[in-house]
Amino acid sequence: MTMHQEPDHFIYLDNNATTATETAVLAAMLPWFDLRYGNPSSPHQFGHSVRAEVDAARQSIATLLGAERDEEVLFTSGGSESNNTAILSALEVMKGRREIVVSATEHASLLSLCSWLEASGRARVHIIPVDQCGVIDREAFRNALSKDTAVASVQWVNNETGVIQPVEELAEMAHQVGALFHCDAVQGVGRLRMHLQSTAIDMLSASAHKLHGPKGIGALYLRRGTPFHPLIRGGHQQRGRRAGTENVPAIIGFGVAAELAEKSITEDALRLQGMRDRLQEQILSLVPEALVPGTAAPRVPNTLCVAFPDVEGEDLVQILDQQGIAVSSGSACTSGMMEPSHVLRAMRVPVTHLFGAIRISLSRQTVPEEPDALMRILPTALKQIATTPVMEEVIHG
Amino acid sequence: MTMHQEPDHFIYLDNNATTATETAVLAAMLPWFDLRYGNPSSPHQFGHSVRAEVDAARQSIATLLGAERDEEVLFTSGGSESNNTAILSALEVMKGRREIVVSATEHASLLSLCSWLEASGRARVHIIPVDQCGVIDREAFRNALSKDTAVASVQWVNNETGVIQPVEELAEMAHQVGALFHCDAVQGVGRLRMHLQSTAIDMLSASAHKLHGPKGIGALYLRRGTPFHPLIRGGHQQRGRRAGTENVPAIIGFGVAAELAEKSITEDALRLQGMRDRLQEQILSLVPEALVPGTAAPRVPNTLCVAFPDVEGEDLVQILDQQGIAVSSGSACTSGMMEPSHVLRAMRVPVTHLFGAIRISLSRQTVPEEPDALMRILPTALKQIATTPVMEEVIHG
Repeated sequence: MTMHQEPDHFIYLDNNATTATETAVLAAMLPWFDLRYGNPSSPHQFGHSVRAEVDAARQSIATLLGAERDEEVLFTSGGSESNNTAILSALEVMKGRREIVVSATEHASLLSLCSWLEASGRARVHIIPVDQCGVIDREAFRNALSKDTAVASVQWVNNETGVIQPVEELAEMAHQVGALFHCDAVQGVGRLRMHLQSTAIDMLSASAHKLHGPKGIGALYLRRGTPFHPLIRGGHQQRGRRAGTENVPAIIGFGVAAELAEKSITEDALRLQGMRDRLQEQILSLVPEALVPGTAAPRVPNTLCVAFPDVEGEDLVQILDQQGIAVSSGSACTSGMMEPSHVLRAMRVPVTHLFGAIRISLSRQTVPEEPDALMRILPTALKQIATTPVMEEVIHG
Repeated sequence: MTMHQEPDHFIYLDNNATTATETAVLAAMLPWFDLRYGNPSSPHQFGHSVRAEVDAARQSIATLLGAERDEEVLFTSGGSESNNTAILSALEVMKGRREIVVSATEHASLLSLCSWLEASGRARVHIIPVDQCGVIDREAFRNALSKDTAVASVQWVNNETGVIQPVEELAEMAHQVGALFHCDAVQGVGRLRMHLQSTAIDMLSASAHKLHGPKGIGALYLRRGTPFHPLIRGGHQQRGRRAGTENVPAIIGFGVAAELAEKSITEDALRLQGMRDRLQEQILSLVPEALVPGTAAPRVPNTLCVAFPDVEGEDLVQILDQQGIAVSSGSACTSGMMEPSHVLRAMRVPVTHLFGAIRISLSRQTVPEEPDALMRILPTALKQIATTPVMEEVIHG
């Protein structure tokens, strides 16, 4: 094993896959493992005092989301559970409505759930195209909505490109036909300011480990009054909306992560945008034929997707990996398969570039030396896999 | 706030609600939060090296369960998710079979799921009585099984009384009618030796926080070849059987907790049984009219349920709590409601004692001074709530 055994020397530019748990977050979690380890449902002080802190963490997340009330935040085990809960709940509670409307660039957890729902005859799914910038076709979205729509679900931020969808507008459209609107905001929470109480969004999914919180904990925002059907039934935890002993240390950690994000969200955005834009410029001046899908759309500041011509993104990821730099060639969930990204395909990235994409994603912990190190290695890395005249010309000049 | 702010001085005898995360477990988890925080699905070494350790933890749990193969262990967020996954999966995969058979003393997560399934017309549920010792009526169980049974689900160990059910025998009976057998073993794993590969159990639920592992992580054992239907769909994690980024630190912790339990299971059992039996004897000689439901049945060695005559168990729990001793008056999930325990009712505990039960549950971390402290306080505590001649005679007599 090489550099990954020395994580200090590893350059991690794959923060859309997961982030490091912030030191302050981990420190806040520690007492809840072996000192204040009570079960929040227990009938004694050792349990009650835990419950109070769980509620405080819920408040921190409600604040980050701009929710009207704490109780609108439900803890889950993560983004996938939140997404499944929201969609399945909507189908259950919206009696007589059996259609789902989603964008073509949703995360795998949404699309594969939808394709199973359709294959098993439980729902009919409308997949709405995006334009070349990655933004959903609003007219097609509106046309797909009807009195048969149970729920429309569109992500706030795309995990591969960072493209931001006009979810507030889409939520209004969904309400016009009486449908629920769910938003997968796993890549948006902590990166974009949100004020859910001024939107028409009914349900929203978040995951702590994308914002320097721990893995294994997520949230489902559930606007007050939204009809709901639990995914996990049992005890009375979380007002009967999600059974199971609360994951207390992770909830406490999520709360602190939310507070830290809330405090630095504007400052982080400025700093990361500077770093990302500089990196984008440097890469495009090294390889002018490369494309940056989504660059013309609003994007979150930490994400850079670059599609190189006539290379395999997977190969580039491997070569960078050997040099101790972690980037992704697509969403983590679909990696391992040599299929082009469904996101880039939906954006009509030309076939010359379709397999050549890598995703570089920064975080609050990223320092400028890290993209700099990538830029030092990238020319050699590209040379190693150059197989076509275009790329050879780039390298040899 | 009083003693619960000084956890070192708190006497915790509520280990069936949750246990402290063992120091060695927590230590093993730490690097996975902020040093080796990669996503196991990522296409680089920083992710791959994590996946290898997740697989090693899976092996440790498979060993503790006596499973034939590691892949039979699926990580979930805890016992409730495992139970829900198992029952809903069974209903989905056992086409044409719509009945469920459970015992009357199942945990709330099973019973409330079943009552919803019945109320919503998704299944017909047979609830099988137990005898006065808390052991299921085998004949009634056998008679309830039929070619319409999708799944029978019986807990290995009752959370309130510690009574052990003959699940291996029940699983065989279920197979005789072609039904699946699920076992909620949340209170059994780590306390009883298991060798699932020699049983007919198809699915089994476990939760790390009952065996000194962290909260928020559980397992579903799924015997090789058992038809299965995921509860949470999305990415390809865990062979497509449970989507969502793996909760890596918690999985690592669960693995270590499993190894520690495996090592000391026999020794712990002997030591805890000595402590529990001594405590039972002392309580019964203090209050000879008290009952110990399940004492005549096989029980796990850590659990003692005592039903006092003519007192409210809830009151006793509160008084002990004020003295810094945490016990429970029933399962944590139903506490807070002044309803008698469904478990004790099913065991036909007389009405004089039905509301007077407390549950004392020990763990590997319990030292003899803790039950001793309880015994010092108990006479005064009982005196404080004595309202009837019987109890007053006990105290003053």
